[in-house]
Amino acid sequence: MEKIVEQTLLFDFYGELLTDHQRSIYEDVILNDLSYSEVAVERDISRQGVHDLIKRCNKILADYEAKLHLVAKFLLIKEKVELIRLSTDDPERIKKISDEILEEL
Amino acid sequence: MEKIVEQTLLFDFYGELLTDHQRSIYEDVILNDLSYSEVAVERDISRQGVHDLIKRCNKILADYEAKLHLVAKFLLIKEKVELIRLSTDDPERIKKISDEILEEL
Repeated sequence: MEKIVEQTLLFDFYGELLTDHQRSIYEDVILNDLSYSEVAVERDISRQGVHDLIKRCNKILADYEAKLHLVAKFLLIKEKVELIRLSTDDPERIKKISDEILEEL
Repeated sequence: MEKIVEQTLLFDFYGELLTDHQRSIYEDVILNDLSYSEVAVERDISRQGVHDLIKRCNKILADYEAKLHLVAKFLLIKEKVELIRLSTDDPERIKKISDEILEEL
């Protein structure tokens, strides 16, 4: 998976577990695509400070996923629902995929 | 939702965020249905200690759900997949429900 997509997904799932300060800066860099330098000026902190905060947040979010695996679970379910969406004329296949999802949930 | 079902679900999702000690005692009481007294004897701690630990774990798990809402999200998806499972002969309905799930995810 592309790094930015992965970061966005992890943030989507676990972002609320960051502090307000971390979340706000992480959003500026990862979601709003500001550069470290822009954020540094805007917040009156060092560029290195922004860099360290992003690195730390990436680790926090990745650690939650390593423990909970909820993003992975969600991606798997999404894939299967997309398969259902493409198989609406095949009742047997839909039964099979639905059962797979329900076992997963 | 029945309290024991809710506790089991929350533990399923967020249990890995408890310490090994908390998780092990929580499992004995909530999943294996041992009494506080039984666990107290088995672990050589006070009955009150077991009671406090369970109360604390319930709060930790509920706090994670209050922030992340992932159990609620997965329950909603589960409900919709069960609807799909019951509507395999109705392609239009399956399309509609799949789309709803994909929007949710």
